[in-house]
Amino acid sequence: MSRIAVIGAGLVGGSVASAARAAGAHVTLTDRDADVRVRAAAAGLADVVVDDIVTAVTDAELVVAAVPAAVAPAVLAEVARHAPRSALLTDVASLKGRLVPEVEALLAAADLGPERFVGGHPMAGSERSGPEAADATLFQGATWVLTPTERTDPAALTRTSAVLRDLGARVLALEPALHDQLVAVTSHLPQVAASALADVAAETTSRLGEAVLAVAGGGFRDTTRIAASDPDLWVGILGGNRAAVLTALDALRERLDVVRGALATGEDAEVHALLQRASTARRGLVRVDGATEPIDLVVALDDRPGALAAAITALGEAGINVADLAMRHATAGDRGALLLRIDAVAHDRALAALAAVGLAAHVEPGGTV
Amino acid sequence: MSRIAVIGAGLVGGSVASAARAAGAHVTLTDRDADVRVRAAAAGLADVVVDDIVTAVTDAELVVAAVPAAVAPAVLAEVARHAPRSALLTDVASLKGRLVPEVEALLAAADLGPERFVGGHPMAGSERSGPEAADATLFQGATWVLTPTERTDPAALTRTSAVLRDLGARVLALEPALHDQLVAVTSHLPQVAASALADVAAETTSRLGEAVLAVAGGGFRDTTRIAASDPDLWVGILGGNRAAVLTALDALRERLDVVRGALATGEDAEVHALLQRASTARRGLVRVDGATEPIDLVVALDDRPGALAAAITALGEAGINVADLAMRHATAGDRGALLLRIDAVAHDRALAALAAVGLAAHVEPGGTV
Repeated sequence: MSRIAVIGAGLVGGSVASAARAAGAHVTLTDRDADVRVRAAAAGLADVVVDDIVTAVTDAELVVAAVPAAVAPAVLAEVARHAPRSALLTDVASLKGRLVPEVEALLAAADLGPERFVGGHPMAGSERSGPEAADATLFQGATWVLTPTERTDPAALTRTSAVLRDLGARVLALEPALHDQLVAVTSHLPQVAASALADVAAETTSRLGEAVLAVAGGGFRDTTRIAASDPDLWVGILGGNRAAVLTALDALRERLDVVRGALATGEDAEVHALLQRASTARRGLVRVDGATEPIDLVVALDDRPGALAAAITALGEAGINVADLAMRHATAGDRGALLLRIDAVAHDRALAALAAVGLAAHVEPGGTV
Repeated sequence: MSRIAVIGAGLVGGSVASAARAAGAHVTLTDRDADVRVRAAAAGLADVVVDDIVTAVTDAELVVAAVPAAVAPAVLAEVARHAPRSALLTDVASLKGRLVPEVEALLAAADLGPERFVGGHPMAGSERSGPEAADATLFQGATWVLTPTERTDPAALTRTSAVLRDLGARVLALEPALHDQLVAVTSHLPQVAASALADVAAETTSRLGEAVLAVAGGGFRDTTRIAASDPDLWVGILGGNRAAVLTALDALRERLDVVRGALATGEDAEVHALLQRASTARRGLVRVDGATEPIDLVVALDDRPGALAAAITALGEAGINVADLAMRHATAGDRGALLLRIDAVAHDRALAALAAVGLAAHVEPGGTV
């Protein structure tokens, strides 16, 4: 894919533009804010920085809407009206459960092609913002979730995935609603906890003095780093994922209450049990991605609609990264086979996940993806 | 100081030995565990690795007891019995409020010189442990708290500080009890929060699947990094600082309750207020230590006992790092003056902090420390 348009030149949009440009694409960038456009151009983030969406998307093959979630549906509808009918569309909003169906409905109602839209969420960021913070390497090794639905054209998923992999991302497909539940725990809850910790420290500083600053070591810095994030952005995210965040907050409070109660009554064994469980979990949860052998799986697709999406999301939900994928068309009328490149270590889990959704797979001798 | 003995060859002891060796000292290292001694010797952490404390400290000028807090008093007493009477003693235990008076009493009772002991706590660490994790640069730029008391010989404080600065540390003097209150907020509370977050994520993984691993981005990794720490170590720290940790936990729960309540009832403005306050606090709390001009303050010391300790702890409690210090003896019988090198930006705060404890200071023209 050689012509990419990016709408929005903030940290994420600027980084997408910059990374795509570094990967050899011709990148057109725009932003509704004239000052941001000037700064994005000065930072050399794109081949061309233009003044409006219509000009930006006029000959795009893929349009990435890197705009606030609140305006994403309207922006994607405008993009769809003005981009070539063959152009694929994706967004980067951090919540998908409500947005993806809304965008699909909007595009369907105006006959603008909902099947060419795949919701996306790059799991990468920074506490910095604006075009100056853009970084072509922001997505290297980061997970980029795509949230295809039954309406999504398999080719749109395949081709969008390929572009994101070119930006260095690991693509994972998840159902929109499951995505939101997972990020409540891995992103929204840590944000609230980090903010609460920073606020406690600030209150302590005002009470016990500036030495708090000096004794705040690496553990404190790590734990509260994301507290420096933009409150405007986060209040929207937390409010947009209210139910899942409340559930996650209750789970956190339950653990804190256990520690508080056990500490107060001297039941150190109970404190130890939680710390031990957490230590084991943390070591296991954040695996070091070693360089493993890739293998190619061949998944026979029947004529069942959505079989491709089912295969991809089954792997996504099993936490298996698809390093590459391709369709193999056998005969006319036949949906053919899907070739998936995964880590060899995930082989057994991948076959099980596919079997669970009724798909048979085998390993292709000599990778062909 | 050219001859340093280190008792305990774990992460901290091994790093002290390695850093001291790199700074040009002759370092003798021991550990009660024979296997650890072999590994420490293999890692080249010291000039000599010996089998016992008596041999280790025989001609030491400074002894660093880098052993678990539970055994630190007994180890320091044994060290004091066998080291030269002129040898200075310090420890690295992460709690000081109970330990420091206990060690002083133990040394005083056996006439082993409590005045030559200064409690210490390097604010640096790693989730790794053992001699293989030792790192000569572990203390570069890290705060190392010393907790002198009225019993401490000013020269012991001055000379121990100088060695720690040679290891790359920024030395801060605090009263033992205040130290424990501060670390409850900056270290112990983040540890509990990180463990609770990791435990919630682990439970989510078992419920919603392995995709949790893939969507856990940098924010999650940062926020939970210290959850991988050693539970045995932490249960001791939390239990040893029970009251202060409970107070800190209550402060955290109060914030989480505010967020939970506001989210549940849709009062997003209240969520925003906390996030905004925390964001501002986090940006302010963790200042980037820019290279600033050092200045030398001259503090006139009267004959009041403990004036030196009062000056140093006043600066410590104001969060002001003393980059270097020296005594200037004027005439016999006069306590003379204390020269303190601090950052020029802290000039006003330093004078105010010293004035608050009844000490007058002025800037020395042309640094002389």
